[in-house]
Amino acid sequence: MCRFLAYSGRAIFLDTLLIAPNASLVRQSLAAREAKTVVNGDGCGVGWYGARPEPGLYKGILPAWSDANLASLCHQVEAGLFLAHVRSATSGEVTMANCHPFASGRHLFMHNGQIGGYESIRRSIEALIPDDLYHSRRGNSDSEAMFLAAMGGSMSQDPAGAIAAMLRTCRRIQQANGVAQPLRFTAILSDGKALHAFRWSSDDHPPSLYWCQLETGIAVASEPFGDTAQLWRPVAPGTHMVVIDGKVDCRDFEVFASLAA
Amino acid sequence: MCRFLAYSGRAIFLDTLLIAPNASLVRQSLAAREAKTVVNGDGCGVGWYGARPEPGLYKGILPAWSDANLASLCHQVEAGLFLAHVRSATSGEVTMANCHPFASGRHLFMHNGQIGGYESIRRSIEALIPDDLYHSRRGNSDSEAMFLAAMGGSMSQDPAGAIAAMLRTCRRIQQANGVAQPLRFTAILSDGKALHAFRWSSDDHPPSLYWCQLETGIAVASEPFGDTAQLWRPVAPGTHMVVIDGKVDCRDFEVFASLAA
Amino acid sequence: MCRFLAYSGRAIFLDTLLIAPNASLVRQSLAAREAKTVVNGDGCGVGWYGARPEPGLYKGILPAWSDANLASLCHQVEAGLFLAHVRSATSGEVTMANCHPFASGRHLFMHNGQIGGYESIRRSIEALIPDDLYHSRRGNSDSEAMFLAAMGGSMSQDPAGAIAAMLRTCRRIQQANGVAQPLRFTAILSDGKALHAFRWSSDDHPPSLYWCQLETGIAVASEPFGDTAQLWRPVAPGTHMVVIDGKVDCRDFEVFASLAA
Amino acid sequence: MCRFLAYSGRAIFLDTLLIAPNASLVRQSLAAREAKTVVNGDGCGVGWYGARPEPGLYKGILPAWSDANLASLCHQVEAGLFLAHVRSATSGEVTMANCHPFASGRHLFMHNGQIGGYESIRRSIEALIPDDLYHSRRGNSDSEAMFLAAMGGSMSQDPAGAIAAMLRTCRRIQQANGVAQPLRFTAILSDGKALHAFRWSSDDHPPSLYWCQLETGIAVASEPFGDTAQLWRPVAPGTHMVVIDGKVDCRDFEVFASLAA
Repeated sequence: MCRFLAYSGRAIFLDTLLIAPNASLVRQSLAAREAKTVVNGDGCGVGWYGARPEPGLYKGILPAWSDANLASLCHQVEAGLFLAHVRSATSGEVTMANCHPFASGRHLFMHNGQIGGYESIRRSIEALIPDDLYHSRRGNSDSEAMFLAAMGGSMSQDPAGAIAAMLRTCRRIQQANGVAQPLRFTAILSDGKALHAFRWSSDDHPPSLYWCQLETGIAVASEPFGDTAQLWRPVAPGTHMVVIDGKVDCRDFEVFASLAA
Repeated sequence: MCRFLAYSGRAIFLDTLLIAPNASLVRQSLAAREAKTVVNGDGCGVGWYGARPEPGLYKGILPAWSDANLASLCHQVEAGLFLAHVRSATSGEVTMANCHPFASGRHLFMHNGQIGGYESIRRSIEALIPDDLYHSRRGNSDSEAMFLAAMGGSMSQDPAGAIAAMLRTCRRIQQANGVAQPLRFTAILSDGKALHAFRWSSDDHPPSLYWCQLETGIAVASEPFGDTAQLWRPVAPGTHMVVIDGKVDCRDFEVFASLAA
Repeated sequence: MCRFLAYSGRAIFLDTLLIAPNASLVRQSLAAREAKTVVNGDGCGVGWYGARPEPGLYKGILPAWSDANLASLCHQVEAGLFLAHVRSATSGEVTMANCHPFASGRHLFMHNGQIGGYESIRRSIEALIPDDLYHSRRGNSDSEAMFLAAMGGSMSQDPAGAIAAMLRTCRRIQQANGVAQPLRFTAILSDGKALHAFRWSSDDHPPSLYWCQLETGIAVASEPFGDTAQLWRPVAPGTHMVVIDGKVDCRDFEVFASLAA
Repeated sequence: MCRFLAYSGRAIFLDTLLIAPNASLVRQSLAAREAKTVVNGDGCGVGWYGARPEPGLYKGILPAWSDANLASLCHQVEAGLFLAHVRSATSGEVTMANCHPFASGRHLFMHNGQIGGYESIRRSIEALIPDDLYHSRRGNSDSEAMFLAAMGGSMSQDPAGAIAAMLRTCRRIQQANGVAQPLRFTAILSDGKALHAFRWSSDDHPPSLYWCQLETGIAVASEPFGDTAQLWRPVAPGTHMVVIDGKVDCRDFEVFASLAA
C-alpha cells in the first residue's frame, strides 16, 4: 500500500504540502517509525510541471524520511501542479526505475493498488505496451507497465477512455489466466494541465482516495493530512475525477460499461 | 532504537539466525511493515570472522528487508562468530559510514543507545579518539566515536576496562556541559575470539539485551527471536557478559565503581 | 565495453585475482582515473560458488574502485570458481538489476558485447524468455535477456547448444528488423562445475578474450592482467572454451553451422 | 582533481551550461569514458539560489554521467546563480556527505585542491570549525572542514579575509606538523548575491581557473567549455575574483601578506 498526493492550483513550494503539514506524505512515511501506521520506506518520487514542456522528476530509493535531496528540492521548488509518492513495494524491486511517478513525454502517472497475479501474467501485461514506448520500459513493476500500456491508447483526447481500455484488457488477461486476485487501481494522471484521479477496483476494495479544497488549490491524496479543520472528502469507488482550473468534476468511471467485471 | 544480534559457536550460515527464524533480525525490520513494531529501516550491516585476521564487513543504506546483497551474503557465508545490526538513526545521517558494526583491525563493535546531548558535545567526544585512529573516523555518529575512543585504551588486555573508561569520560563530558539526558550503552564488541556484551546506562533504562543457548552456540540479541521453545534470558543492567568457547560469563559492569553516576 | 574475469581451480581468496594483481579487474576500473584506458564505472558484480547449491552474488552501482563492500567481500571470501564483472553501460540503465553476473538457479552468466539495435527489437528478444523465467527478469539490459532466453533451452545437457540457439534466434530477429549492427557475444557461463567461455560475433570483431594457467587454476578474462611473466593466450573468435577439473578444452563454436551469418 | 562550474547572470536553465555545451561539466565526466581526460566519477552536486533564502542543493554518489535525477533537475531548474561540481575523490570517501557544493545557511562552497597531509592533521583542521557549526560537519573531507572553519570568521563582511585567515591557519598546521606537501585551493564561494572565486596555492601549482563572459552572464570554471568562439580567460594564481551584477573584479589574494608561505 503506497501513499500519494497530487496538487493543482496556485504555485506553492512543494514542502508546503509534502513536508510541513501534520501527517504530510513524508510524515506518513516517518510516522511508521513510531509504528502508528504501515511503512512506506521503499523509495519515493516527485514530479512537477515548471517552465519546460516535460515535467521535472526526482526519484530516490531511500525512505522519504531520510532523503536530504527530496527535502531540499521540495523546499526550493514551486509548482502549480505536482505529484508525489512514497512506495511500499508490492511488485518490482526497490530501484529508482520502479519508483513513482512515471513520466512519458508531458505525462506523469502514479498508482496505488496492484494487478493480482502479476508475476504469472507479466509477459501478457507487458505485451500491451505499444512498440514505440517499449524501449522506455525501465523497471519491472505492474504500475509502470499499466501506464505505458495506457499511453498507447487515446491518452491525449480521452484519458479516461485510455485508462479504462487498459484496465479492461488487464482484467481479461487475469481472467484468461485464472487469476482469482482482484485488479486494484487508484491512480493519478496528468498532462501538465489537468489532474485525472481514478478510484476503481475489480472487487469492492479500491485503495482509498480523498480530495480537499485548500486555500491555494485542490489536493488529492491517499489519505487526509494537515489541519483537522480541513475538510477531506472521500472519492467514491468507480470515480474519475478531473481537476482543472480550480474546479473538481467527478464522473462515473466504468471499466466494463454495464457489464459485470 | 536499533536492533542487533551476535553469535558465537560452531560455524553456521548467517541466514540461519539472521533471516530464517521467526522474528529474525531482518524480519524485525520487516515486521515494521505490518506496523507491529518500530521501524529499523536506516541501513544495516554484518561483520563476520573468517579465514583472515580482519573480519569481513558488509554495510548497506537500504532497509535490511530490501537488501538483496545482504540476503545473498547471509545465505552464502558461514561463520562461527558474527555480528549484525539494523539501524534506526538517532545521531548521524543515513550513510554507510554510520552503519554498524564498525571495524578497527581485528575488532568489531556495534551499539544500541546514545550519548544524550551528543550534538552539542560532539567535539569533546571526538577529542577522545586517539591520534593514530582519528583518520579512520568515517561517519558522524556517537557510536563510531565511542568505539574509536575505547580503542585507544587497554582494549587488547582489558576490554571491559577500556569500555568503562570511555563511558566514564563521556559521562563526565555530558555533566561538564550540563547535559541532562542519559548515556545509554548496550553494545557488542569482539576481537575475533571472545564476544563481549555490555548493558549499561547512566539512568535506569539501558536498552534491552538477551542471550540464548542454541544447539550450535550462543546468541546475544536486542530482543528474543525464533521458536518460543527457546529460552531467552535477559541480561541484567550493569552487566559485562563474555562469551568464549561456548561458555557465558556474566560479571558486574561498573563504570563509576561504587560512586554514583 | 565491459571487463570481466572468471576463475576455476583451487579455492583462493577473491582479491588474489580481483584486486591484488597489476591491472586487476578493479585496477582496470581504477586505471581509468589515470586515463590510461576506458572507464568501467557503471557498477560491478561478483558471483561465487561456495557451500550452497546456488552461487553467492554481490552487485553494486558504484564504480568498483570505490566500493568498500566489494573490497571487503573479495578479501574475505575464498572460492574455487567465481565470476566478476565491471560494467560500462551500453544498454540498460545503471541499476543493480543490470549489473553482471546474472544468476538463475545454479547458473551464473556475464557478457561483454551487445545486440546491435537492441532498443528497437527489445520486445522480440524478451519474447524468447521462457514463461517460467519471465518473472525473474529484473532489469532491461540485452545481456540479462539473452541469458534468460538461453536458460529456456538445453542448458543442463548442452550449454553451448543452448547459447548457439539463442544467438541464432537473436541474429534472425536483428535481420528480420533490418538491423545493420552486429551481434557481439563474449561471455562466461557456469553451472558451478564447469566454466564455459564463448567468443563470437556476427561480424569480425568479437570482444577480446584471454586465458591463463595460474599456479592455482585457470583464469579467463577480457584482457591480460598480473605479472608480465604470466602467459595469457588469446581465445580465437568462434570458440567455445570449457574449463573443468583444471583442464581447458577449446572447440569451434558455430552459431550458423556451415552457413554464413 | 575535481571539476567545477559557477554562473552568475540572468536566470537560465541549469542544463544550458551544465549539460548542453561541448565539454560541459557533465560531458567532462562523460569524456572520461572515451579516455580523453581524467575521470570525475566520484559523485556530483549542484547548488542554486531561488526564491528561498537558503540555496537548493542536490548531491549524488553516482557519476554525473549516469545520474538521471541530476539531468532532470538541471533541465527543469532556472537560476541566476548556481554552482556545480563533479568529484574525483582525494580525501574522504564517496558519500553524499563528501560531495560538493557544501551549504551553510545562505552560503555555498566548492573546492578543487587539497590540504597536503590531511590524513595526519585532520584533527587540528577540524579543531578550526567553530562550536556552533561543529554539529553540521557531515563528512570527512578536507574541503568541508575548510569551509566550516572559514564560516567561523568574518564571512559576512569580508569573505576573502575569512578565507585567507583559514588558509593561513591550515598552512601553519601543515608546517607545525612537518607536512611537506602543498596546500592547494581553487574554490568558489557564494552568499546568494556575489560569487567569490579564489585561486591560490602554497606552491606554484594552484588548480586551474577560467572565466568567460557569456551572453547571459559570467561563468567561472575549472576549464573552458562550449564553443571555441567563446573567450575563456585564465584567472592568475593568487587571485580573488568577485562576480556581482554582471561585473568581474579581480584582486590580489594574499594569504601571507608580504611574507613568504
